[in-house]
Amino acid sequence: VTLAYDGGEFQGWQVQPGVRTVQGEVERAFSKLAGGAEVRIHGSGRTDTGVHARGQVFHVDPPRAYTAEKWREALNGILPENVRVMRVREVSPEFHARYDARGKQYRYFIHNAPVVPPDLRGVRLGVRSPLDVAAMREGASALIGTHDFKSFSANRGGGEESTVRTLRRLEWIQEDETLCLLAEADGFLYRMVRQLAGALLRTGLGQLSPSDLRRLLRNPVRGNEAPTAPARGLFLWKVFYDEPSLN
Amino acid sequence: VTLAYDGGEFQGWQVQPGVRTVQGEVERAFSKLAGGAEVRIHGSGRTDTGVHARGQVFHVDPPRAYTAEKWREALNGILPENVRVMRVREVSPEFHARYDARGKQYRYFIHNAPVVPPDLRGVRLGVRSPLDVAAMREGASALIGTHDFKSFSANRGGGEESTVRTLRRLEWIQEDETLCLLAEADGFLYRMVRQLAGALLRTGLGQLSPSDLRRLLRNPVRGNEAPTAPARGLFLWKVFYDEPSLN
Repeated sequence: VTLAYDGGEFQGWQVQPGVRTVQGEVERAFSKLAGGAEVRIHGSGRTDTGVHARGQVFHVDPPRAYTAEKWREALNGILPENVRVMRVREVSPEFHARYDARGKQYRYFIHNAPVVPPDLRGVRLGVRSPLDVAAMREGASALIGTHDFKSFSANRGGGEESTVRTLRRLEWIQEDETLCLLAEADGFLYRMVRQLAGALLRTGLGQLSPSDLRRLLRNPVRGNEAPTAPARGLFLWKVFYDEPSLN
Repeated sequence: VTLAYDGGEFQGWQVQPGVRTVQGEVERAFSKLAGGAEVRIHGSGRTDTGVHARGQVFHVDPPRAYTAEKWREALNGILPENVRVMRVREVSPEFHARYDARGKQYRYFIHNAPVVPPDLRGVRLGVRSPLDVAAMREGASALIGTHDFKSFSANRGGGEESTVRTLRRLEWIQEDETLCLLAEADGFLYRMVRQLAGALLRTGLGQLSPSDLRRLLRNPVRGNEAPTAPARGLFLWKVFYDEPSLN
């Protein structure tokens, strides 16, 4: 199931007692359609409080024998307006939304002007100071490839796994006052996209140079040189799978 | 003053007792900055309930001697988040936001897909059925020029003035699932943009032909062939003035 949501109104993806989460909301909708039985959904990964999605993916053992289209309509009839089922496809019983994911694409949106138009206020980071987009593009190019991205991540707690990832794309798309950072990798560390965005923003403001970014890759330590950019500009855009029909 | 607002939370532009309007909200902000004195602002024209703006313009006799930038900051510090002052410029005492306007540009946004992503739900008309964009473009071309647009307008009450207008641009811009109707004229009749959008949508659904649109121009009567499209997709984008510094 491909899901879009307005993250500003949720305490993130993962179900937690007493707070409103996207997973909790979707599981409640399934449960209603299953006559009250508990239903567990399995996401491609978590998103943090305030992070939006256009293409989060989860799998579920369907509690009823609906067609894909009927599932979409039934769920959207129950879900609140800030969560929408975009697409439903049938998969093999072995499919797993998290373990089978081959990569993800995030997009981080900035409005570079003195004032953010109100209709965009929930989905843009407003940056008043003029940004040096050429430097931000040079910085982005320096970060592409397979590296230890520890300098661009935070510790979520728990055992530390490998911090090596392959960043396949990292590009700034500019249109009028909007700047969009497109980031695509085999996987992302905790807070990685927002710290990449934060470091590149500092580059655009002249506070970090592209060679500083290269140094942070060569010398992977957690510090405060790559600040975590706010969640409101960030969208989980797409999750990639091997099966062509899922992309 | 160039103003942007999220119209979904207002009962239109014009001040009215007991309801929340954009003009009322802005006049209240000015009044606070004027130590409680009443301040009247003069818009380029009204917008209806639910219609958004990126570039509404009003003029005002400033109640204090602030610089343009200071006015912008002071007003944005008081206004609610859904109204933002984008730009402030000093004009001659003779300038009038309504009488000096030489034209307006509106944009109407459609999301042509089964489901509208939640972050766009307040600013797109969702259309599930596939639209024939070529027919919609042919229809738009047929409407450009100086015509009696009575068939594409509603009666606001009060005396009827001329229903002849010059439509300078009427273009569909397509990007992925978004269709945007850009409409520019010397002035617009009541409900005119939404009825142009409604008629062109019916054209895209095969219910009206471009020659039907030509007939509605030749035979100007109010009927129901050009339905009023919902407000949520519509933005007042720009108001044009002779002074180059205002555009």
